[in-house]
Amino acid sequence: MVEVNFGIVGLGRLGKIHAKNLAKNVPGSMLVAACSIVPEELEHAKNELGVEEVYATFDEMINSPSINAVAIVSPSGFHVEQITKAMKKGLHVFTEKPLGLNVAEIESVIKVINNHPNQIFMLGFMRRYDESYQYAKRLVDDGEIGELTVIRCYGIDPSKGMESFVEFAKNNDSGGLFADMSIHDIDLVRWFTNSEIKKVWALGKNAAYPELDKLGELETGAAMMELEDRTMALLVAGRNASYGYHVETELIGTKGSVRIANIPEKNLVTILNEKGSVRPLSQDFPERFKMAFINEMKEFVSCVNEKRQPEGNANDGLQATKVADACSESWEKNELVKIK
Amino acid sequence: MVEVNFGIVGLGRLGKIHAKNLAKNVPGSMLVAACSIVPEELEHAKNELGVEEVYATFDEMINSPSINAVAIVSPSGFHVEQITKAMKKGLHVFTEKPLGLNVAEIESVIKVINNHPNQIFMLGFMRRYDESYQYAKRLVDDGEIGELTVIRCYGIDPSKGMESFVEFAKNNDSGGLFADMSIHDIDLVRWFTNSEIKKVWALGKNAAYPELDKLGELETGAAMMELEDRTMALLVAGRNASYGYHVETELIGTKGSVRIANIPEKNLVTILNEKGSVRPLSQDFPERFKMAFINEMKEFVSCVNEKRQPEGNANDGLQATKVADACSESWEKNELVKIK
Amino acid sequence: MVEVNFGIVGLGRLGKIHAKNLAKNVPGSMLVAACSIVPEELEHAKNELGVEEVYATFDEMINSPSINAVAIVSPSGFHVEQITKAMKKGLHVFTEKPLGLNVAEIESVIKVINNHPNQIFMLGFMRRYDESYQYAKRLVDDGEIGELTVIRCYGIDPSKGMESFVEFAKNNDSGGLFADMSIHDIDLVRWFTNSEIKKVWALGKNAAYPELDKLGELETGAAMMELEDRTMALLVAGRNASYGYHVETELIGTKGSVRIANIPEKNLVTILNEKGSVRPLSQDFPERFKMAFINEMKEFVSCVNEKRQPEGNANDGLQATKVADACSESWEKNELVKIK
Amino acid sequence: MVEVNFGIVGLGRLGKIHAKNLAKNVPGSMLVAACSIVPEELEHAKNELGVEEVYATFDEMINSPSINAVAIVSPSGFHVEQITKAMKKGLHVFTEKPLGLNVAEIESVIKVINNHPNQIFMLGFMRRYDESYQYAKRLVDDGEIGELTVIRCYGIDPSKGMESFVEFAKNNDSGGLFADMSIHDIDLVRWFTNSEIKKVWALGKNAAYPELDKLGELETGAAMMELEDRTMALLVAGRNASYGYHVETELIGTKGSVRIANIPEKNLVTILNEKGSVRPLSQDFPERFKMAFINEMKEFVSCVNEKRQPEGNANDGLQATKVADACSESWEKNELVKIK
Repeated sequence: MVEVNFGIVGLGRLGKIHAKNLAKNVPGSMLVAACSIVPEELEHAKNELGVEEVYATFDEMINSPSINAVAIVSPSGFHVEQITKAMKKGLHVFTEKPLGLNVAEIESVIKVINNHPNQIFMLGFMRRYDESYQYAKRLVDDGEIGELTVIRCYGIDPSKGMESFVEFAKNNDSGGLFADMSIHDIDLVRWFTNSEIKKVWALGKNAAYPELDKLGELETGAAMMELEDRTMALLVAGRNASYGYHVETELIGTKGSVRIANIPEKNLVTILNEKGSVRPLSQDFPERFKMAFINEMKEFVSCVNEKRQPEGNANDGLQATKVADACSESWEKNELVKIK
Repeated sequence: MVEVNFGIVGLGRLGKIHAKNLAKNVPGSMLVAACSIVPEELEHAKNELGVEEVYATFDEMINSPSINAVAIVSPSGFHVEQITKAMKKGLHVFTEKPLGLNVAEIESVIKVINNHPNQIFMLGFMRRYDESYQYAKRLVDDGEIGELTVIRCYGIDPSKGMESFVEFAKNNDSGGLFADMSIHDIDLVRWFTNSEIKKVWALGKNAAYPELDKLGELETGAAMMELEDRTMALLVAGRNASYGYHVETELIGTKGSVRIANIPEKNLVTILNEKGSVRPLSQDFPERFKMAFINEMKEFVSCVNEKRQPEGNANDGLQATKVADACSESWEKNELVKIK
Repeated sequence: MVEVNFGIVGLGRLGKIHAKNLAKNVPGSMLVAACSIVPEELEHAKNELGVEEVYATFDEMINSPSINAVAIVSPSGFHVEQITKAMKKGLHVFTEKPLGLNVAEIESVIKVINNHPNQIFMLGFMRRYDESYQYAKRLVDDGEIGELTVIRCYGIDPSKGMESFVEFAKNNDSGGLFADMSIHDIDLVRWFTNSEIKKVWALGKNAAYPELDKLGELETGAAMMELEDRTMALLVAGRNASYGYHVETELIGTKGSVRIANIPEKNLVTILNEKGSVRPLSQDFPERFKMAFINEMKEFVSCVNEKRQPEGNANDGLQATKVADACSESWEKNELVKIK
Repeated sequence: MVEVNFGIVGLGRLGKIHAKNLAKNVPGSMLVAACSIVPEELEHAKNELGVEEVYATFDEMINSPSINAVAIVSPSGFHVEQITKAMKKGLHVFTEKPLGLNVAEIESVIKVINNHPNQIFMLGFMRRYDESYQYAKRLVDDGEIGELTVIRCYGIDPSKGMESFVEFAKNNDSGGLFADMSIHDIDLVRWFTNSEIKKVWALGKNAAYPELDKLGELETGAAMMELEDRTMALLVAGRNASYGYHVETELIGTKGSVRIANIPEKNLVTILNEKGSVRPLSQDFPERFKMAFINEMKEFVSCVNEKRQPEGNANDGLQATKVADACSESWEKNELVKIK
């Protein structure tokens, strides 16, 4: 088994998760180097994760002879440049979504990726590696629910993040609710249906935080999509789930339906008290997708060893961004938008 | 307490349910007369329900001095005429949905109804009288889930009816999936939100019965709706639920969510077997809304006694039909349609 | 169809339920007479239920030529005498549980009942007429879960009744927790298994209300039972469910398990809020067994019309009391007790 | 952080799980040596897990200077001897349950363990390290459900193991159903209540495999237990769950109840099909307690580093065996048995 020696860029909330997994939870992976402009994050890498090499710049890191792979968990604006540089250095590349900020730059980076077919490239659509999603995918692929007619996807962040989001939005562009929150759901639609999205209509409502109207941001949105095979997709995206982190998917077919996290249960506990019968709920993505983040990295390491490309590739990233952009455009214009 | 003496017209599947309730399950109600062109149905009324007067025509029945109310459960095409005649006779009127076949005739019958304000008029939106829907309505009205942002409604008939529907559709116009199946859901959207639907986009897919494409009918459809207060509505309508009768509603608000029949459970039984943990499901509307049909008739009798009009009035019927028509038009043209 | 004309004795909490059902909710039944020593209860019967004849004594009521059946919902101490008198008058008899206060008097009244085989006699084991229990019984009888090995029954009253129970217990003998609460569960054990209980061990604990220790009463108890066919029964009985009314039954068999009210859900509503995913729960027996109370009376009326005896007969009452007594004795002595 | 270098003895089904975790899934742990009398198992350790030292005997392995800890996953009959030898060698010891075959030998090994207080000793009561059990324990300890009155524990193995068990039982003594299956549940009772079990009554029934009667073995059993604080425990133990692996625990308190795995759900998937609404179920202990097995080893490593003893100690093993023995004796004699 080849040891995959990672350098990671970005040690924020999600970066720390990937760093810990690469350092401790993924057999065959070593976290050798880390890069961040935040000194405390590099200290964390050294002291908590035993990372030997720390760098202030990405360029320095990828020049290290100790690494053969990078994990890119930096802000979205850096993805295209860092993927390109790492690819050209001959490194295997794992990158968080999105692939890039817009279709033009994504198309350019795809060319670079395609020019290095012997290096592994993986885009972090981790839901595909969640045990429940994989179980559902097998059911669908095995024909257990017949032909798909409707797919419904919810992706709603917990409201505990709303106040800081409103502050953030005063001075920043989040990229929009649909790019921010629905991109995983758009990927799931494509993954489950094996069909492309053709046309969308998107709506939005700011109810708890009407000040977002002026900022051009959304608290909650919905989109309906027509697919090439006529399957219908219904998406709800939000930032304000008072009860936790709500990722739910439903697939309706001619022979049955499958739901993943119909209720986004936190664990196997049920409490009976004066409120009723209570199931605790998932509170955030690190909790809900803890194992999926590990599984995707295990898959990455397997791909390196087995010299094959993983699911969740650059084209998936391109298509998801195209659809998310169409949702944003549809919402802004309040009209149907065709995907180019 | 005033005895409400009913004459019923129509003794098909739903007609028999109403007839039995009026005869046996609604205190203060008597089923005195029945009218049908099917002799067997009149025999049923006499022998099973003890109905004393049976008629071949509606005109004869409403001339009977024994009745002071009618229940109209005839085919939709007769509703407007029968409501009009009964109103002019001074009778209280309960009618099944829809109020009429199109907006023009519905508007004309509303004038008649409005000219007889002292007679009770009720449109059979029975879901409003279901215990679980009423419980949810109180939660929403009490502000338990904050301001509504999204409402999702499923109304899917069991697939056991598909084959006969396909046969029927070869020679008949069903009125369309959205008028047929979504009208209750459209009413729920208006009832829960207290807001009007402004704009819709509707899609459809025939997967198990592609022959419906040629017949201009739909097996499964979906619609997204924008409301005047910006609340977003997502509807799924269908005729082909392999697992039973699926009526489900979700209300998402700024402080929480409420689901009615998240899983459309048949009873309180759970079975653990080699399939997994199994909850049996509702199989058809007579089972799911058994008590709601009784409750709405109890409410009708109370309204007669208390000289007040019930919820679920003629304007609700008009609005629901307008929106259902817009869905049909949107599906046919594949474009956004504004409600007039 | 024969009209069954009831006189009812006892118009307390449960009496009012039966009275209303007999007056309004059971086709073929008329509530003609009522008997109570509480004048307000007789006023209620006249004014709310239209009862024509009201009596201060049971003897007067059963002398009325207008009735052909009695419903006995009086305090337990009167059951034997009232059953006996009504039987001798030639009336059909429905009685609430228990059949009598002790085995000796129950055996004597059974003789009377057996001497009048042409009069319907029914003991109010209403759970047998609950839709979910009936569904489960069919599954078990159809062999869906194979041979039974374990049956678990919970019967726990809501804690809202605890304070008044403690007051009551200071001056009264409740008959004991197991006679009071487990008698329906004991009947279910016998009904589902078709086997008799042989031996029991019972325990109890007063935790929230330790003052019950001195009063010889129990807040919560448990019993394990060995049946003749070696099936094992586990019972929990209580008066202090903080979350509502908890009646739950589980049947474990060699091919699967069935649970009735695994979670004692109130309706089809689910609420997602900061507590988690919440299902409201049943709060008391009138709510949980509303339809079962109606169904058992419908069955009684059918039995009168069809001249057959219902399920839930006098012997079932005798056996249930024997087992409940054995539980009490076992708890008092803390030893195994064989059923005689 | 001290590296804990393990030697493992026993590489059967559970042994392989522990070996893999120690080799790959527990940071701070190395699997350095393995011991087995089965050559294929040693090959597996070398080739799949990279174990450097393999031995045919335990004595050889513990003489290796490379290890500072052992994991004992050998047949139960070897536990006492191996614990003793490892302790005397100065090694940290993790052992699977049971501590020993009988109370006498367990008491002798406890003396050895107590004589080496600076070496970590852990007994594999892994359920204490399951996320859901830990969540429930916090709720109970925080007083969320008040004072405990009843605890119910199910531990039922999947029926897929029955046929080989019957074969095994023809020539071997399993130790008995209660020692085999209930020992984890007995530990949970003690863990949740902080009270000791005083008295038990146990029953059993062989329904699907009546031939077990002659072999003195049980397919399904139940036990009721009285605790010193009067809490009541109800246990079901079995080897024949047709639907999978059923470990479920319920805690009833004066302010509410907590259930762990009320339905032993496999994942977050729900399927709606003609069977009803189906949740897939856990199929075996490696699946259900996958993370618990990892968590307990992480805790072991932490204990070594932090020089503290873990939960799940030798006395817990002794008490659990005492109670399991009492259950066996009670079942054999069909009488109440007091714990010595």
